[in-house]
Amino acid sequence: MSQLRLINPKVQNIRALELDTLVRKAVRIEEELKQGLKKPYNEVINVSRCNPHATGVKPLSFFRQVIATCSYPTLIEGDTMPLDVRERAKTLLGECSGGSIGSYSFWPGLPHLQRSISKFISHRDGGVPAPPDNIFVVGGSHQALKLLLSILVDGSRSPPAGLLVPVPWKTTSVTNMEAVGGVAVPYYLDGQQGWRLRVEELRGALLSAVGACHPVALYVSNPGDPTGHVQSRESMEEIIRFVFEEKLFLLADEVHQEIVIGEGCKFISYKKVLAEMGAPFSDTVELASLHSVSQGFMGEGGLRGGYMELVNMDPSVMKSFYVVLCQLNVSILGQMALNGMLNPPKPGDPSHALYEEEIQHIRSTMIHNVTRAMKVLNSLPGISCKPIGGGAYMLPRLHLPHGAIQQAKEEGRLPDCFYCSRLLEQTGLCVCPGVDLGLPEGTHHIRFSIMTSMDTMEEVLRRLSTFHKRFMKDFS
Amino acid sequence: MSQLRLINPKVQNIRALELDTLVRKAVRIEEELKQGLKKPYNEVINVSRCNPHATGVKPLSFFRQVIATCSYPTLIEGDTMPLDVRERAKTLLGECSGGSIGSYSFWPGLPHLQRSISKFISHRDGGVPAPPDNIFVVGGSHQALKLLLSILVDGSRSPPAGLLVPVPWKTTSVTNMEAVGGVAVPYYLDGQQGWRLRVEELRGALLSAVGACHPVALYVSNPGDPTGHVQSRESMEEIIRFVFEEKLFLLADEVHQEIVIGEGCKFISYKKVLAEMGAPFSDTVELASLHSVSQGFMGEGGLRGGYMELVNMDPSVMKSFYVVLCQLNVSILGQMALNGMLNPPKPGDPSHALYEEEIQHIRSTMIHNVTRAMKVLNSLPGISCKPIGGGAYMLPRLHLPHGAIQQAKEEGRLPDCFYCSRLLEQTGLCVCPGVDLGLPEGTHHIRFSIMTSMDTMEEVLRRLSTFHKRFMKDFS
Repeated sequence: MSQLRLINPKVQNIRALELDTLVRKAVRIEEELKQGLKKPYNEVINVSRCNPHATGVKPLSFFRQVIATCSYPTLIEGDTMPLDVRERAKTLLGECSGGSIGSYSFWPGLPHLQRSISKFISHRDGGVPAPPDNIFVVGGSHQALKLLLSILVDGSRSPPAGLLVPVPWKTTSVTNMEAVGGVAVPYYLDGQQGWRLRVEELRGALLSAVGACHPVALYVSNPGDPTGHVQSRESMEEIIRFVFEEKLFLLADEVHQEIVIGEGCKFISYKKVLAEMGAPFSDTVELASLHSVSQGFMGEGGLRGGYMELVNMDPSVMKSFYVVLCQLNVSILGQMALNGMLNPPKPGDPSHALYEEEIQHIRSTMIHNVTRAMKVLNSLPGISCKPIGGGAYMLPRLHLPHGAIQQAKEEGRLPDCFYCSRLLEQTGLCVCPGVDLGLPEGTHHIRFSIMTSMDTMEEVLRRLSTFHKRFMKDFS
Repeated sequence: MSQLRLINPKVQNIRALELDTLVRKAVRIEEELKQGLKKPYNEVINVSRCNPHATGVKPLSFFRQVIATCSYPTLIEGDTMPLDVRERAKTLLGECSGGSIGSYSFWPGLPHLQRSISKFISHRDGGVPAPPDNIFVVGGSHQALKLLLSILVDGSRSPPAGLLVPVPWKTTSVTNMEAVGGVAVPYYLDGQQGWRLRVEELRGALLSAVGACHPVALYVSNPGDPTGHVQSRESMEEIIRFVFEEKLFLLADEVHQEIVIGEGCKFISYKKVLAEMGAPFSDTVELASLHSVSQGFMGEGGLRGGYMELVNMDPSVMKSFYVVLCQLNVSILGQMALNGMLNPPKPGDPSHALYEEEIQHIRSTMIHNVTRAMKVLNSLPGISCKPIGGGAYMLPRLHLPHGAIQQAKEEGRLPDCFYCSRLLEQTGLCVCPGVDLGLPEGTHHIRFSIMTSMDTMEEVLRRLSTFHKRFMKDFS
């Protein structure tokens, strides 16, 4: 007998992801393997989400040495660590209360971090200023998004607030919006045109929302998660004009900005484009830009560090941010990782050569992985895989035989879930079904991370090919 | 000109704390000191919140060595670190995806952590079972509280949900409730009786809520934050009977459980008392218990680790917890700190002797600090300071002269804010004014942390005494 009869219905309505079920199954399989159960594979490979260190990418040594030294400052003495590591650790510990990473970090975080981020942004954007007061240190982009939406959305309002989200989407954009009582309004990216964002689509989405919700913001992801599309300046200008006209808040998820590998592709920040468009856009459009240490070359998702820059926000809204953020204690080591991402070793520093070597290795691995995946997958029947400009994912489309669709239906499952579930059971490979990305029924996709070692990618492609050929044969 | 006209009014209504203003001022003063400005003191001491490492308490070596080794696994080789540290690091890294602390940790966290917590609780509670599935790894007790309230409270309901909170309160209990659209219903602890909780007070609070809100839960803090009161078994049984009768959810904040120093005081968990009361209580009363690495002997607030145990929850409510928690990535190093807190070095381990020595030193420092503070403060005119049973704070009462109250009024401030503000300006000492703890107008208190080194406590008492004597003289 339970006494509790009241629970927030918004939470009850949060959609459970198919991927969560798959991941739980993957965990169970791993346990069975550990217990000695025989399967046609020795280990589970989970590339359903981008989790670089879990799939063979090595952490960058310099930052890990700094974190180890800050955790156990005795390492500042002696020569276990390189000189620049010890110096960096000394500086960072000097910024912690009592010289300890165990102290709470109250708003706004480590004393010099806001200024450091400001310099990084301004340098990246060719000199566009980034006032430190507009920068908030957070525990990753997911936390930033939750915070933003909790401030922007009044869950008790009717009609509810709406957030325009791209399809295919990053699942957290939708679940976080729904958790605060808002509505996700989908706009569709053009899969035939490399997942380009077309403004007509945005206008259509706004029309579709009439009556159902009151759209307050547009969410964009660049480089695209999970599409790999890198937006052009022209497209970004169009989008900025659109949010200006429609008085929408622009929420730019730019966490994959470091990984741009497509020919002719270049990452430009929304902040830079907005500033360069001049008035009335540059001093009116409200923008939040998110960045994190979890993606890119660092890939330190376990450390929980990131930042959010706010542009053109009303001072009264900023005040609310300050109040909410005063209560946020971001992990000190997450903040130190962020400091590292913004201030890597410089030429001449003892750690510079190794750092450059490690970065180059990750970059060439990514290019290799994408090239190999394109080649292997496009040689298979019933899969088509388009080139990507950047980001962390491949998103191949499956053309499943009628028999498979029929079988899935009989088992009460969607075809891509059916495919992913069998793939996991038979080969120990876990990928994300397209249905979790909002892709419409009738089209079938899988998403997998390219941020793996070359060996892991070879094994991913081997398992996927073997399974796929058999699957196509079995159901043809 | 701002385009954004909509913002969640619940966020706008979150009360800003006087302490936040004081802390911002303290940060400014610190910067001025660094810039060479002359003041009657060389540094700011902030004891307004319990932040042990910031105020001279040393971290426990074993755990820091483990964290350093996990961050930079090269340290597993060689003999920079003791053998048991290297072994623990190897085990913990074996539980991280890809053997890296940089991997995301998806629900339910590191594989063995739930079982480890379960064992710890059951051992602490004399064998009462603690099923691992009821245990959730979180990034500190503050995050746990936010999560709980966001699940329990439907912000769009009218009348809103209510949470019974003790006065003096832990500020986060109130601000988090208000942020989700709920109402904090105060119940007053008896300052004349060592801040004991009386059930008649709870009944009165329920009556006071009629019409204004619909109470759903009772929040208790044991050992009391900020009162230092340690609840007796009899009192806890009374409270459990009360929540049973009134069908309230019981939210037990037990983060200070390690620090019990009063004679005859003993920490007993609500879970244990509930289990030992038997049916109908033990299988009906819904309970959440919070614990964290931020307090107690570890004091690692910067690492962000903790857990929450749920008892007697309805399976449908548990399902909501799973969905929300699937999206929570708790810092891996915070989880490792939690593993350490639950599994300290054992007798015979290379690190055991040092660990014991460090723990004993912290314990005797706390006893020394409380004894000294009692002696010094009670010798001053216009301050009375009662003994505490445990927890992290002293909460002396101020008996301010009429002149001071008048002067505060003229400056448009509450008397204890006026006192704290002057204390900070004149001596560089930052303490928390009673008004932030919900204490009623007309009584004046200050709160300060006892989790400091002995030297820091001496300096705190020296500054406070000098200031207080002058203050009393100036306004008499």
